[in-house]
Amino acid sequence: MLGAWGGWQAFRRCASLPRTQRAVRLRVREALGAREPADEVKVQGWVRSVRSQKEVLFLHINDGSSLENLQVVADPSLENRDLTFGSAVEVQGKLVKSPHRMQNVELKAKTIRVVGPCDTWLFPLKTKERHPLEYIRQFPHLRCRSNTLGSLLRIRSEATAAIHSFFQDNGYVHIHTPIITSNDCEGAGELFQIETSNEARESAEKTHFFSVPAFLTVSGQLHLEVMAGAFTHVFTFGPTFRAENSQSRRHLAEFYMVEAELSFTESLQDIMQVMEALFKTTASTVLSKCPRDVELFHKYIAPTQKTKDRLEQMLKNKFVIISYNEAVEILKQASQTFTFKPEWGCDLQTEHEKYLVKHCGEVPVFVINYPYDLKPFYMRDNEDEPQHTVAAVDLLVPGIGELCGGSLREERLPFLESRLQRLGLADAYQWYLDLRKFGSVPHGGFGMGFERYLQCILGVDNIKDVIPFPRFSHSCLL
Amino acid sequence: MLGAWGGWQAFRRCASLPRTQRAVRLRVREALGAREPADEVKVQGWVRSVRSQKEVLFLHINDGSSLENLQVVADPSLENRDLTFGSAVEVQGKLVKSPHRMQNVELKAKTIRVVGPCDTWLFPLKTKERHPLEYIRQFPHLRCRSNTLGSLLRIRSEATAAIHSFFQDNGYVHIHTPIITSNDCEGAGELFQIETSNEARESAEKTHFFSVPAFLTVSGQLHLEVMAGAFTHVFTFGPTFRAENSQSRRHLAEFYMVEAELSFTESLQDIMQVMEALFKTTASTVLSKCPRDVELFHKYIAPTQKTKDRLEQMLKNKFVIISYNEAVEILKQASQTFTFKPEWGCDLQTEHEKYLVKHCGEVPVFVINYPYDLKPFYMRDNEDEPQHTVAAVDLLVPGIGELCGGSLREERLPFLESRLQRLGLADAYQWYLDLRKFGSVPHGGFGMGFERYLQCILGVDNIKDVIPFPRFSHSCLL
Repeated sequence: MLGAWGGWQAFRRCASLPRTQRAVRLRVREALGAREPADEVKVQGWVRSVRSQKEVLFLHINDGSSLENLQVVADPSLENRDLTFGSAVEVQGKLVKSPHRMQNVELKAKTIRVVGPCDTWLFPLKTKERHPLEYIRQFPHLRCRSNTLGSLLRIRSEATAAIHSFFQDNGYVHIHTPIITSNDCEGAGELFQIETSNEARESAEKTHFFSVPAFLTVSGQLHLEVMAGAFTHVFTFGPTFRAENSQSRRHLAEFYMVEAELSFTESLQDIMQVMEALFKTTASTVLSKCPRDVELFHKYIAPTQKTKDRLEQMLKNKFVIISYNEAVEILKQASQTFTFKPEWGCDLQTEHEKYLVKHCGEVPVFVINYPYDLKPFYMRDNEDEPQHTVAAVDLLVPGIGELCGGSLREERLPFLESRLQRLGLADAYQWYLDLRKFGSVPHGGFGMGFERYLQCILGVDNIKDVIPFPRFSHSCLL
Repeated sequence: MLGAWGGWQAFRRCASLPRTQRAVRLRVREALGAREPADEVKVQGWVRSVRSQKEVLFLHINDGSSLENLQVVADPSLENRDLTFGSAVEVQGKLVKSPHRMQNVELKAKTIRVVGPCDTWLFPLKTKERHPLEYIRQFPHLRCRSNTLGSLLRIRSEATAAIHSFFQDNGYVHIHTPIITSNDCEGAGELFQIETSNEARESAEKTHFFSVPAFLTVSGQLHLEVMAGAFTHVFTFGPTFRAENSQSRRHLAEFYMVEAELSFTESLQDIMQVMEALFKTTASTVLSKCPRDVELFHKYIAPTQKTKDRLEQMLKNKFVIISYNEAVEILKQASQTFTFKPEWGCDLQTEHEKYLVKHCGEVPVFVINYPYDLKPFYMRDNEDEPQHTVAAVDLLVPGIGELCGGSLREERLPFLESRLQRLGLADAYQWYLDLRKFGSVPHGGFGMGFERYLQCILGVDNIKDVIPFPRFSHSCLL
C-alpha cells in the first residue's frame, strides 16, 4: 500500500491543479492504507453516514476505491443542512491514527464542503440499509453506489486485468476479433442481425449496408484460429451475443467471453492445463487484490455459506478429468431421476452437469471426448469407431454447470474437407480450408464465459447481478 | 529478457507434456534473447526462407513472437521436399552463439520435422518479397503471416495492454459499458440497429426482441458517467460502431475507443493532462516493448520518413493549447484557401485541423471552448455570452486531425434540465437528470479512437491496415 501511495501522490500532483491548496488529494483507499499521519490532506467522496453528537460530528466517506469508508471526525459546528447521506463532499484536514480498533486512521476535518447535495427523499438507496439485489436492479443508474455493486464492479475490473495479465505473461498476443461478422461460427445459438437504422425504418425490399447479411459475433474462435497460424498463442476477451431469452437467470443477450487458441498442441491435456491455470490464477489474483469485496459476497450474497470453502477447495486441488463415456455411465447408475434420460450420444443437460460435479465431490470436472455427431465440424476426429468421438472438452463447475468449452481443432485437410462437404459448407468455409494448405499445425483452444466465472467464484445466483448494467431486463433501459 | 526466459520456461514446462523429450520448448523471441547456449532445445514455427548450400542448410524460422527470425543451421541431409517457405516445422538441436554479426544465437539442428507442408504455388505470400499493404489486404485470413501485419498486431496487442495498465496504475476502475443499447448518446453518427435474424427474415410487422429499438453503441460515455458517480475514476476500452461509409481511408464501421470519466474535476486542464499522459505513456511503452516492429513501420510503411522524428517530438514536448476563438483567427489569417471557409460558429473540418497542427509546428494541439450551439447537451456551459461556448476539448494530431474529444460535463441540474427541455429530450434523459439530484459533482471525460492513435504513432495512411481483419471492405468477408 505504501508503494501505491507514492505512485498515487505523484499522479495526483500531476492531475490536480496548481491553483489548489497545498493539501495532498488522497483516495479513501490510500488514506486507509497510510502508514503515517499527514497534516494537509484532501478527500473527496460521497457521504455514507452522518452521526452528530454533542461534542463531535462523525461522517463516513466512500469514493468507490474500496468497500471500507473513511471515518471523518469534525467539530459539530461544521455540520450543515446539505450534509446528508448521499451528498458529495470534499473534506480537508489531518490524517491521524484512529483510537478505534476497527480502523487504522481517521480524518480530523478542518473544513467540509458539500460539493453536491442529495435529495434523500427521492434517493432510492437508504443509509445503512442492506438492499436486496432484486431491489437495486430496478435502478441501473444508481445501484453502483450500493456496497454490493461497488464490490462487484471492483472485482470485475480486477478479474479483467488478471485475465489480460495471465495471457500476456505467458506470451499470448491479444487480438480484437470482429464483433460484426458474416460468420455464425458454429450455429451455437440464435443470432442478432444488423441493419442501419435508416434502412430498418423502411420496410420490405431493403438493401444491406454490408454486401452480405451481417451478424453480431457468437464467438471469435475461427478468427483466432487464423491468428494462431501466425503467432502460435493468441487470445481475445470481448463481448459475444446470443439472441436467447434474456429472462433466464443463466443467460444474457450480451456477455463477455475469454477465448484462446494454441498452435503446436497435440493433446487435450495442453488445453486443460491452460484452462485450469487461467481459472486458478485469476481467482487468486482477485482474492489477493480485493479480499474484502469477495468476503462481502461470500458472507451476505452467496446462496449458501459454503461458497468460500468451495472456492478454497477448487484452488487447492487438481481438477478432475473424466471421459464422456464415463460420465454417461455415472449418470446411468445414479439413483437420482433426471428430466432428460442420460443416453450415449445425447448432450449433457444442466441437471446432468450438476450431478457429475456433485458426484466428483463438488470440484471442477473436465469431461472429454464427446460423440462426433454432437459437435461442430471443426473439432478433431478421434477416429475411435464404433463409439465415434471428437477431442472436445467441457469444464463443469459447482453451482453453474458448464463454464468452459474447448477442443483440438481438425488440422488435417482431408478430414475437414470431407466433413464440410457432407454438411454442404465447403464453399462457405473455403478460407478455413485454405488455412490447412499452408503450414497447418495441430492446434486447439477454448472459451470461458466471463460472467459465469464471476458467478462461480462469488456464488451469485442471477447472471444479471454480475454485469455493470442489468440491461434489457426489468425496468429502465439505459 | 533473462527474466522473461525464466518465466517462460516455467510456463512451458507446465504447458508441454511429460511424454515429450527433455528438450526445452522455446519461442523464437526467447531463443534470440538467450544469454547462454543450451543443449536440448525445441523450436516450432513457420519457415521464412530455405537456403541450401553444399555443406550446410540454412533455415529462417518465425513463430510470431518477434519480427526477427531464428536462424537454423543444419546438415544438408536433413533437407526434404516439404521443407519449403511457409511450411510448419519443429526443430530440435543446440542453441549456440552465432558467428554472424547480425544475430546473437543460432540453432544447430539435430532433427527437423515438417509438421505441416505448404502449397507454395497457391500461397499468396512469397519468400523474401515485401508485399504492399493493398495486396495483402486481399487475404484477410493469411496476411497476418506477413512481416507488416505481424508487427502491427504485436504493436496493437502491446498498446492495448499499455492502455489498460495506464488506467489501472492510476486507480481507474474498468467498466464494460453496454454494446447493445437504446441510447444514441449524442446523435454522433448513423446507428446500426439490431434484430434477431429470425425476425429480420419476416418482413414488415415485426416485433422487437427487446421491448424498444436497440442499437450498437456509438460511445460508452453516458454509462461511464453513471459509474464515475460511484468510483470517481473509470474507463472503458471496447468496440464502438458508426454506420458510415466504410470505403473511406479514415472511417470504420467498427472501431475501438478508449473512454475515461473523472469526478471532482473542475477544469479542462485536468482532462487534458490525462489525455496527454495516456498518449505519451502508451507510445513510450510500445516503443520500448517492440522497437523493431515500430521501426518497420517508420522505415517502410509510413508515407514520409518524418514519422519517426515527429513521434519523438510529440513525446518530448508539451502539447499546445489554443482556444476555438484563436483557432478561427489563425484560420482566417491563413494564406491557404480552404474548401470550407473558416467562420466562428462552424465546425472545424479536417482541412482546418491539419492546417492548425501545421501552424503550431506539427505537434499535437488541444483546441478548447467550442461554440455552445455546435456541441451536444451534456457539455458544460461556460456562461460567456455573447460568444457563448462550452468547456469542450479536441486533440488534433499530425497526419490525422482529430484524435480525441472530451469536455467537462454539465453537472448543474437547472442548466441541464432547461437545455434538455429545449431539445425535447427531458423525458428520454430522466435517468441522466437523476444523477444530478443525488450528490452531483463537477466531472469530465474524453474518448480516444484507438485505430487513429495507431495510425498516428506508426504513420499508417489507411485505417483498414491497423485492424486485425479488414472486414467489410474488399474481398473475403470472414
